[in-house]
Amino acid sequence: MNLIILKTSDFTGNKIVRLHGRRFNHLCTVNKAKKGHEFSCGLLNDKIGTGVITKISDNFLEMEVCLENTPPTPLPLTLVLSLPRPKMLKRIIENITSLGVKKIYLINSWRVEKSYWQSPLLDKENLEKQMILGLEQSCDTMLPKIYQKRFFTRFVKAELPLIAKDSMCITAHPKALKKCPLHLNTKTTLVIGPEGGLIDKEVDTLENIGFSSFHIGQRILRVETAVTYLIARLFT
Amino acid sequence: MNLIILKTSDFTGNKIVRLHGRRFNHLCTVNKAKKGHEFSCGLLNDKIGTGVITKISDNFLEMEVCLENTPPTPLPLTLVLSLPRPKMLKRIIENITSLGVKKIYLINSWRVEKSYWQSPLLDKENLEKQMILGLEQSCDTMLPKIYQKRFFTRFVKAELPLIAKDSMCITAHPKALKKCPLHLNTKTTLVIGPEGGLIDKEVDTLENIGFSSFHIGQRILRVETAVTYLIARLFT
Repeated sequence: MNLIILKTSDFTGNKIVRLHGRRFNHLCTVNKAKKGHEFSCGLLNDKIGTGVITKISDNFLEMEVCLENTPPTPLPLTLVLSLPRPKMLKRIIENITSLGVKKIYLINSWRVEKSYWQSPLLDKENLEKQMILGLEQSCDTMLPKIYQKRFFTRFVKAELPLIAKDSMCITAHPKALKKCPLHLNTKTTLVIGPEGGLIDKEVDTLENIGFSSFHIGQRILRVETAVTYLIARLFT
Repeated sequence: MNLIILKTSDFTGNKIVRLHGRRFNHLCTVNKAKKGHEFSCGLLNDKIGTGVITKISDNFLEMEVCLENTPPTPLPLTLVLSLPRPKMLKRIIENITSLGVKKIYLINSWRVEKSYWQSPLLDKENLEKQMILGLEQSCDTMLPKIYQKRFFTRFVKAELPLIAKDSMCITAHPKALKKCPLHLNTKTTLVIGPEGGLIDKEVDTLENIGFSSFHIGQRILRVETAVTYLIARLFT
């Protein structure tokens, strides 16, 4: 936890927050928090600053906070990701949040196991938990937006053209002939398939609305590794 | 499993291998293997090619293999990694193997929990299991070499200078002033600290033998994300 994420409900006064539960326990056990210690804090979807502990009891602590700085610049990236298996999704959401991705579409595709859509991890509050871990890690406060789309073709044909408007449109595809460009540093929409990849028909559907397919080298990477690798390659 | 890794002990004849256990189960259940099907195969630390199934029984299968291609080029990278917690180490070993890293030093440092060194994951056969998963993923056969070094200062002063000779020497350090260079594509020795980072004294010890410290941006990443991010940044 490199940044304590605060919610407006934590405030008991103008500049006073009261923390219990996970954050309180973490600060006491990992950070050995004591009265007078200062920590980095940020209000969810708002500014960043510091908090000084003014009171510690057995099950809560209070801090006086001063939040004046803006959070780090988000990546100009919309990530469209075939729904991975839940255990991997959990880590991916945390990772891509920590990397600064702010717009995520979880979509169905041919090789996505139907059962993955039943995972409780897809509930709003569980996704938010993972995103908050990513924000805490990367000292950011801006919660990404996650959308879930259960119908590949309908989504790609009816919604994606508008979502991807005025952006570089890229499909990561191991069988593509060209290697993914470096450092676009521009507004980008990136589609990443599931383990096993998108099927040819899906890649064609994306190409038909203007997506170019690129590989990332001879080695096939797991989705969670590929996501980080692609982001590091596309943005400096 | 994008490539079936064979060992010399799998061979029952000149070009015939017999598989049971994990690989057999995977081929039957995930790949629905049938007689006549062809799969990518590679002999550990040797060539890559294909195998055609010649026999399937209830608990083993046989393939006739033809191995003539060379495995993908390794990264010119020596990775020196503060021992992460076992669960993360497991994933990191698989990931960095899939990315083509061939030389890995797991080292102690101030913020490494001493208990991590007791993990059974550090046993040779358990590390090999994770590396083989990475090779299977990335269609490679060349097993990385992993060394374990329990004494930071002794290792850095007495061994690292020779290990890092004639290479770019980089310490990844969130507090560094310069951002990590792009696409060195050259022989590199990269030191990555634990969660929480190396302490200043450790960074100094590395600087004293010629390592330059670089950050990777405003966002602090988890070690497993940072490793992939750095590799994508250093090598195209």
